[in-house]
Amino acid sequence: MIPERLIYQNGILKILDQRLIPYKISYLKAKTYKEVAKAIKDMVLRGAPLIGCAAAYAYVIGFKDKNFKTKNELLKYFRTLKENINSSRPTALALFAASDRIQNLLEEELNKSSEKLDFKDNQRIREKIYSEVLKIVNEDIDSTYKMAEYGIKLLNKNSRVITYCNTGALATMGIGTALGVITYGYKKGKISFAYSCETRPYMQGTRLTIWELKRNKIPSALITDNMSSYIMATEKIDAVLIGADRIAANGDTANKIGSYQLAIAARYHNIPFYVVAPTPTFDTQIENGSKIKIEERSEREVVEIMGKKIAPEGIKARHPAFDVTPHNLIKAIITEKGIITPVNQNTIKKHLS
Amino acid sequence: MIPERLIYQNGILKILDQRLIPYKISYLKAKTYKEVAKAIKDMVLRGAPLIGCAAAYAYVIGFKDKNFKTKNELLKYFRTLKENINSSRPTALALFAASDRIQNLLEEELNKSSEKLDFKDNQRIREKIYSEVLKIVNEDIDSTYKMAEYGIKLLNKNSRVITYCNTGALATMGIGTALGVITYGYKKGKISFAYSCETRPYMQGTRLTIWELKRNKIPSALITDNMSSYIMATEKIDAVLIGADRIAANGDTANKIGSYQLAIAARYHNIPFYVVAPTPTFDTQIENGSKIKIEERSEREVVEIMGKKIAPEGIKARHPAFDVTPHNLIKAIITEKGIITPVNQNTIKKHLS
Repeated sequence: MIPERLIYQNGILKILDQRLIPYKISYLKAKTYKEVAKAIKDMVLRGAPLIGCAAAYAYVIGFKDKNFKTKNELLKYFRTLKENINSSRPTALALFAASDRIQNLLEEELNKSSEKLDFKDNQRIREKIYSEVLKIVNEDIDSTYKMAEYGIKLLNKNSRVITYCNTGALATMGIGTALGVITYGYKKGKISFAYSCETRPYMQGTRLTIWELKRNKIPSALITDNMSSYIMATEKIDAVLIGADRIAANGDTANKIGSYQLAIAARYHNIPFYVVAPTPTFDTQIENGSKIKIEERSEREVVEIMGKKIAPEGIKARHPAFDVTPHNLIKAIITEKGIITPVNQNTIKKHLS
Repeated sequence: MIPERLIYQNGILKILDQRLIPYKISYLKAKTYKEVAKAIKDMVLRGAPLIGCAAAYAYVIGFKDKNFKTKNELLKYFRTLKENINSSRPTALALFAASDRIQNLLEEELNKSSEKLDFKDNQRIREKIYSEVLKIVNEDIDSTYKMAEYGIKLLNKNSRVITYCNTGALATMGIGTALGVITYGYKKGKISFAYSCETRPYMQGTRLTIWELKRNKIPSALITDNMSSYIMATEKIDAVLIGADRIAANGDTANKIGSYQLAIAARYHNIPFYVVAPTPTFDTQIENGSKIKIEERSEREVVEIMGKKIAPEGIKARHPAFDVTPHNLIKAIITEKGIITPVNQNTIKKHLS
């Protein structure tokens, strides 16, 4: 129903160009790890879990046909690669998580070798990286189905919901996080209607989420972000479901700019606000949301739409790409391991252990 | 600094085409009352007070060179004209207020005549209409300066504020309502910085407000509507200032879609939320906000930007053009007569009496 997001074959990662959806289904072919990093940076693909998978594939591509003479040489190369990948989207934790898993694997594997590496060592390491990456991808797919199963437990029959940004199949290798719950919930009679917020400035809701909803034949409508409170005040809305880019140890959640405002609106109207995100989204090194670095992206994305300038020349614009929703506005966090509620440091610690 | 919005001369109303700002300063020439109504409907001009003034001019144009033989004939014509004008934007009360003033004047004048009207009666009535319209326009100009004077009393030195939609010179014949307070406040050292919310779907903030702020050399930046909560949480923001399309007897305020969400955000962050609107905006016939009719405009304005389609084909979108902010979220209402605080039925009744 939704086209494949990433197709890896023989050192080439075909990346579905999400900037062209809904107009065109087209793939960009990344042949080097730098091209993968650039694609992430340029938002050819987006969605934290999908970014994590693409980053993982960057290591497969980066190490393909490479033979290092020494551990030192390999590690030096790895560090450059990692730096390049990790700097492509500084807020998406899944990206760092993928890098860390490759790093741990490399350290483990290199412990088994002497300083000098032969062809067999190199081959073994390449194979290990590849199978680790496949594991990352499969875990991502699997976790979306598990989140959907847990998520629908929180919904009554025929729920009407609001969702934000794109957290569907397009954001993952599986069925999605928050939108995955909606897609799956619709099949199970738990969802009767979904509003997609347009999600300025990048319009993921307008271009991607409403497109997925329509392709999946789910009764739905698009609203601008500033309509959500009006909808909550004038219609029956049973839940708000969003994804996450990074979750601190106490549950404070970094997600697409506007999530925080939506959470405030949900609280004001006594509507439960749910975050749906796989466990790699948690960064327990970070005590609370105030410590999460927020990426400030180019003004251009605010003052231009589809390459067309909409604001007067010479004005200033802001573009924080994310915001932080404090844990006390979040009714529950749904992961592939279950449901965290209430959301606080203790419940999260227990959940992740 | 800001070009004239309406220029009336010899039966022709030149209307600044605000759909073309900031790209082009261009005037549409309305030669019939129907063309004025159509211009209002098509949003060539917008802003409740300015709509009121344009509606008033429609009566001057409609009656120009017209000679009626009987009162009945005149009143029949008036009713058609009024119906046409009043249906152009159903939420803007200033429009009905202008129509009502002309109606009262006509009734008064016709009381002085017999059923048959001669040329002199017709001439007298035309002149009365014209001078009433000039009064409406001058009152509008005058009231914007008075609102600005009262408004800045509520601000500390160097305040940093957020504003919504366009409530500046472009929305009135004077300096504006909420943006008028900001423009005037900047001159008086009360404002040091203003954020303009883009105001989806019509982007009045992006096209008009930030343009006015820049033309008036006020330090400012554009934000998308969903960024306001992030800005409130991470920076010093001293006040939110908005205009109004219609205010009920208890202070519930209909204004551009998104105002309500901004008010909720301001409350959550303990930031005072002010409504700046002239007294004709009050509709004391309407008990509370639930009775205010909300205009649902075309989906097209949500799924297209500047004529370019941004959403997939065949999807549904909503477009309530206004929402209602309950009076308990409003710290004060500023009119040309002073400051209403707290905002409730009693304080409003007293203020308007």
